Amino acid sequence: MKKIGVLLSGCGVYDGAEIHESVITLLALDRNGAEAVCMAPDIEQHHVVNHFNGEPSDEKRNVLVESARIARGNIRDVKTVSADEIDGLIIPGGHGAAKNLSNFALMGKDAIINPDVIKIVRDMVESNKPVGALCIVPALLSKILEDKNPEVTIGNDFGTIETIEDIGGVHVACSVDQIHIDQTNKLITTPAYMLGPGIKDVAEGIEKLVKAVLKYA
Amino acid sequence: MKKIGVLLSGCGVYDGAEIHESVITLLALDRNGAEAVCMAPDIEQHHVVNHFNGEPSDEKRNVLVESARIARGNIRDVKTVSADEIDGLIIPGGHGAAKNLSNFALMGKDAIINPDVIKIVRDMVESNKPVGALCIVPALLSKILEDKNPEVTIGNDFGTIETIEDIGGVHVACSVDQIHIDQTNKLITTPAYMLGPGIKDVAEGIEKLVKAVLKYA
Repeated sequence: MKKIGVLLSGCGVYDGAEIHESVITLLALDRNGAEAVCMAPDIEQHHVVNHFNGEPSDEKRNVLVESARIARGNIRDVKTVSADEIDGLIIPGGHGAAKNLSNFALMGKDAIINPDVIKIVRDMVESNKPVGALCIVPALLSKILEDKNPEVTIGNDFGTIETIEDIGGVHVACSVDQIHIDQTNKLITTPAYMLGPGIKDVAEGIEKLVKAVLKYA
Repeated sequence: MKKIGVLLSGCGVYDGAEIHESVITLLALDRNGAEAVCMAPDIEQHHVVNHFNGEPSDEKRNVLVESARIARGNIRDVKTVSADEIDGLIIPGGHGAAKNLSNFALMGKDAIINPDVIKIVRDMVESNKPVGALCIVPALLSKILEDKNPEVTIGNDFGTIETIEDIGGVHVACSVDQIHIDQTNKLITTPAYMLGPGIKDVAEGIEKLVKAVLKYA
């Protein structure tokens, strides 16, 4: 049974991992006979957003503890997971990727990425193992792998594409039901909720991404 | 397009709505051409559980606000939703059903159910519209509809079955990949994570439940 890491960034689209993208990934892994190894950084969230009214609140929450909601408690600190243990890695989207795994939401091309996230992604790529990335996460990959000419998609958002290309990544436009594969670096990316519009649409691309990650794993 | 209410109880298996069950429900509704109308009560959670270590924390969270994470903000206070607006109702499981929508987890057969939850469920049944219930929620249905001899399944958990039958419900054993249908009351139930063991297993039953709710809607 192949083991695929699923790197989460909290629990909720506006301050954490996008929940639909994360659950669809876990379901597709299980249906394709793979074991998910959920992980997240043990750090405080950038902020907490009230998802009912869209306003930031003054609460404090921890990324690992909130990610555990999606994983039903079966989750590890990303710091303790080695690329040797897993056959592939998938990173769902959500603002958590751009606010907790990195400060991409604030800093764009000058973003600082969490060092444990950099390590697991680079170790996977350097071990020739596949990395799947959804939604905004391909922008993080372009930064983490800026020396490797990564080829990714985030759909068709002009501003984000410009940032990816400023960093040195190559962007390829893609519809929500499709994936883009960088054969050299074994990167598989899909726009998910960067395009939406609905859950059935993002599921099409995510299910293809999971199958492709497993094929390359 | 049929409109199906999805009544949530927070966000996370141990203190809210079970996230996988909720997302699989939303995905199946969208794939089957229905519109989900998410709703939750605007009340404080019974408690907050740290899903990483399983311990209760001293935080306070609101059921509607946390449920909004699963609904990506597109959610209403259950109090404002009328049975006239929707063609069917589905209630995912998780401890939130037994701690927030009711106090079933503490009180068993003497449970008190949130009055807005009672109202929407009874209004649906009395309008001859289908109600789907996952996991532990069929036990709540047996209480809400105790005058209507409801026939439900929660799988095979002996203690819960005894409580359901003490209340006056009829329990029918069922495997996780199947559903039970009470034709008289149009109740469709599936064990989901009362049995598990994994996400692909619960998805089988939930997908059948969604199709059955839409058939009766």
